[in-house]
Amino acid sequence: MILDFQKSDGLVTAVIQDHATGRVLMVGYMNEEAFRKTVETGFATFYSRSRQKLWLKGESSGHKLVVKQISTDCDRDAVLVQVEALGPGVCHEGYQSCFFRTLAGGDWRVSEDRAYDPDAVYGGKA
Amino acid sequence: MILDFQKSDGLVTAVIQDHATGRVLMVGYMNEEAFRKTVETGFATFYSRSRQKLWLKGESSGHKLVVKQISTDCDRDAVLVQVEALGPGVCHEGYQSCFFRTLAGGDWRVSEDRAYDPDAVYGGKA
Repeated sequence: MILDFQKSDGLVTAVIQDHATGRVLMVGYMNEEAFRKTVETGFATFYSRSRQKLWLKGESSGHKLVVKQISTDCDRDAVLVQVEALGPGVCHEGYQSCFFRTLAGGDWRVSEDRAYDPDAVYGGKA
Repeated sequence: MILDFQKSDGLVTAVIQDHATGRVLMVGYMNEEAFRKTVETGFATFYSRSRQKLWLKGESSGHKLVVKQISTDCDRDAVLVQVEALGPGVCHEGYQSCFFRTLAGGDWRVSEDRAYDPDAVYGGKA
């Protein structure tokens, strides 16, 4: 049984979850090559839709995602990747999770403090 | 600040997570109307890409998803919806989570028992 890469133009949706805390850290997309590299290397690798190329998460920041378990859903167009996150956060804006804004009273509000200084890690490139 | 519905043809990716256990239950997609209905009604509503229409999760099964909290990610093209799931499972195949297959030794294997009989709930329509 293989993943269905056809439904979304060659990509599957990849939900990244901290294997220890259960926190959802980010959502990315994988083409067939990114998925294969994720499995083979044990580090989460995505396909960047904006840059149109493979993207080893943590390549520049060092904040790699060590794969612990991979699941797929009933229609096989999404994967759930449980990881150990190396580093204080996965978000290039400095937060532990990319989901750092919560809906409250009709507005999106930042609901947590930064876990690290993104300028120090990404050198202002983020 | 509004969600970015443009990046994926009018849709945002919606990750559904059990608010109590942290389990990721399913991934769906929402257009602007589905997102608005989710917020206004308090029940997760999706846009079905295959049927090209709005879809109130649980409309036929009764297994609705009560919204507890909604977050969005740094580029605002995905939402994380924490829910209380009414009913034994969200997957139309009878499982608690749609992510019931786990990668093991290169194969996807069903890694849990069914939580309910889908034929009894969906009347064989699933």
